[in-house]
Amino acid sequence: MSLVKKPVTGMKDILPAEMEIRDYVTSLVKETYGGYGFSSIETPCVEHIENLSSKQGGENEKLIFKILKRGEKLNLAEAKEEADLVDSGLRYDLTLPLSRYYANHANELPLPFKALQMGSVWRADRPQKGRFRQFVQCDIDILGDATNLAEIELILATTTLLGKLDFHGFTVRINDRRILKAMAEYAGFSQEDHDQIFIILDKMDKIGLDGVLAELIESGFDKSAAEKYCSLFSNEERGTDGIRKMQESLQGVLEPGCAENLIAIIETVDQIRQADFKICFDPTLVRGMSYYTGTIFEIGMDAFGSSVAGGGRYDEMIGRFTGQKTCACGFSIGFERIITILMEQGFQVPKGNEKYAFLIEKGADSARVSEVMKEADAYRKKGSRVLVAQMNKNKKFQKEQLIKEGYLPDHIRDFYNTELKK
Amino acid sequence: MSLVKKPVTGMKDILPAEMEIRDYVTSLVKETYGGYGFSSIETPCVEHIENLSSKQGGENEKLIFKILKRGEKLNLAEAKEEADLVDSGLRYDLTLPLSRYYANHANELPLPFKALQMGSVWRADRPQKGRFRQFVQCDIDILGDATNLAEIELILATTTLLGKLDFHGFTVRINDRRILKAMAEYAGFSQEDHDQIFIILDKMDKIGLDGVLAELIESGFDKSAAEKYCSLFSNEERGTDGIRKMQESLQGVLEPGCAENLIAIIETVDQIRQADFKICFDPTLVRGMSYYTGTIFEIGMDAFGSSVAGGGRYDEMIGRFTGQKTCACGFSIGFERIITILMEQGFQVPKGNEKYAFLIEKGADSARVSEVMKEADAYRKKGSRVLVAQMNKNKKFQKEQLIKEGYLPDHIRDFYNTELKK
Repeated sequence: MSLVKKPVTGMKDILPAEMEIRDYVTSLVKETYGGYGFSSIETPCVEHIENLSSKQGGENEKLIFKILKRGEKLNLAEAKEEADLVDSGLRYDLTLPLSRYYANHANELPLPFKALQMGSVWRADRPQKGRFRQFVQCDIDILGDATNLAEIELILATTTLLGKLDFHGFTVRINDRRILKAMAEYAGFSQEDHDQIFIILDKMDKIGLDGVLAELIESGFDKSAAEKYCSLFSNEERGTDGIRKMQESLQGVLEPGCAENLIAIIETVDQIRQADFKICFDPTLVRGMSYYTGTIFEIGMDAFGSSVAGGGRYDEMIGRFTGQKTCACGFSIGFERIITILMEQGFQVPKGNEKYAFLIEKGADSARVSEVMKEADAYRKKGSRVLVAQMNKNKKFQKEQLIKEGYLPDHIRDFYNTELKK
Repeated sequence: MSLVKKPVTGMKDILPAEMEIRDYVTSLVKETYGGYGFSSIETPCVEHIENLSSKQGGENEKLIFKILKRGEKLNLAEAKEEADLVDSGLRYDLTLPLSRYYANHANELPLPFKALQMGSVWRADRPQKGRFRQFVQCDIDILGDATNLAEIELILATTTLLGKLDFHGFTVRINDRRILKAMAEYAGFSQEDHDQIFIILDKMDKIGLDGVLAELIESGFDKSAAEKYCSLFSNEERGTDGIRKMQESLQGVLEPGCAENLIAIIETVDQIRQADFKICFDPTLVRGMSYYTGTIFEIGMDAFGSSVAGGGRYDEMIGRFTGQKTCACGFSIGFERIITILMEQGFQVPKGNEKYAFLIEKGADSARVSEVMKEADAYRKKGSRVLVAQMNKNKKFQKEQLIKEGYLPDHIRDFYNTELKK
């Protein structure tokens, strides 16, 4: 019987070297976010198909791995469409399960509730280099806090974590969906066009301001409205002054308090940050998901050309489960992206302990094996990792392999059956 | 739009208190097994349906969560049976994926390879108290070591871990499938009856020796053979002397070296064990899975009435993927069982750090918030966990909630907008 050796399409086996980095980042995440008072929680990987198909997940809902009904519930003969065959699916993100979790357990949880979730999610995307169909997401969320303390804590916790991973000089860009909307309203665009306009605005970093203007006009929007809209982005100031100027321009259309809120977040973060980064206002920041209702933020690293974290406030989502409004704000690091960057940089996990390999000659009796194992345990008690293994026939090759696995040559010790042979 | 709040049938949301214990056990597992030279690896949760249905998984193959084909590959109109609809499923254990992984990556891995896997598996079992359809397995396996160094290391690593979790006075029971077979052969049972006989023998702890004898006869086996078989179990010695006596009885039918091997394992483990436990020979130990080929072992705890770990040698399984024989031996702790025991015992995670809650009065300006956050960071740097939160209107209730979450009353501090209000 011959079985399939490769993993299923688009998913991957993780080798020890990568796993060591993943485990290290995971423990740093738990330690750092734990220090900020976030509690780890977990939801099942399998979710109700009704929840997964509830239009909260945007494009991701097209990519669900669906799970077949079992036993008598599966009636193939009478099934007319896919929906008749399935009752659940693999989660495509951690935000929808968090909302269900909070709706289910709010009475048992503190208020505000600070949640940390790390877990795999699945999307049946077209397979491509560096993108996988199973990948880990790592989210922190604060539920039930309407104030910007939530944003400030999320930004501090996330940037502190990145700092501990030795990332420097990155930028937190921040905006507010209400500013985005006010800008579009100011220009005279009607509300039903907002989403399309934001999709075009989102291309700013690729096509520039002229490109955005051209594409707006090309898409049939009024030329003078498009020009008025684009004039809002000509101000290059990215600090709190930039927000004040935007506030002036948007007088009458921008919700009161919105600009002051952003300014307070930036000022507070600037005063107490732990890591080496900038925080700036970016009126071109859009963030894709339509569930965001207020502040949105993203962390980019120039050196790697893409964002490594993103999040925002989504005050309306949990209410869809409960009927009761629950404020919510979250920040998610790109776990897989960060692992890839660390691997490419040749990142070495800082070791408090050293690796040893003890090789025992074949045929050693239990007295001799015990002796070697006792010595190994003494090393372990001092914090070392000790691999005890049979000495292979080809000892030279075995040692070469161990050196490749990170064992120093003088940390590989031979143990013969009798001390005489030494 | 109202969504489903409960998790899917048979799966569960994990609340912060349980998650804290799970995270603690997980990090202890990684640290302890890492100390023994085991490397963490991971395989996708989704496996090829061909592999999952390859008769390696026994009864578990009836319990697979199957995943629907996607896109054009799904042809509902022409599908005649379930198999036409699915291409993959959720893994039901970690042993089958490990075999596939090793077959796929042997060239990139050291020999012997010591693997640690922790991960969720899924079985569509009938839901019942304390048993879930998604649960974590935690396996260590040594591949490519034909000697009993593998068994010794697996037993030492597992018992050391249990000791660190404060389990005492437990028993490692050990046997060998070859002894099981030799006993059946000695009694005169034919080979095709072995599995049925082992299923009856496995009930020894429930029905006793007389019960086993009665059930063998009832099942139609020859009375004198059944009596001869049962006479083998009348010797109550459970140490190495018991093995020697069994070896004498089985002279001529037992594979040479088998008894000596078991004796060497017990003697060596006895000399170097780190934790408080007994290791003994148990000729009635069967272990269900038919893939075991040699030693089998299990850890029971009298106080909890069930086993908390089990494993054995399965030298033939990986060859089914590769066509090349690869020795393998594994030990698996019952992760969920251990978590349940710890929860029932009111286990408290040992804390190197203390928890504080800083409550900030509503309306604090950014200078004040910064001040409080800076103090929180100073605490964090000393290893404390600090929750910073808005002070709720009902401060008394908020504090009661925090105390329930494990914050000591004098670790909850109020911060007002101005120092004057203090």
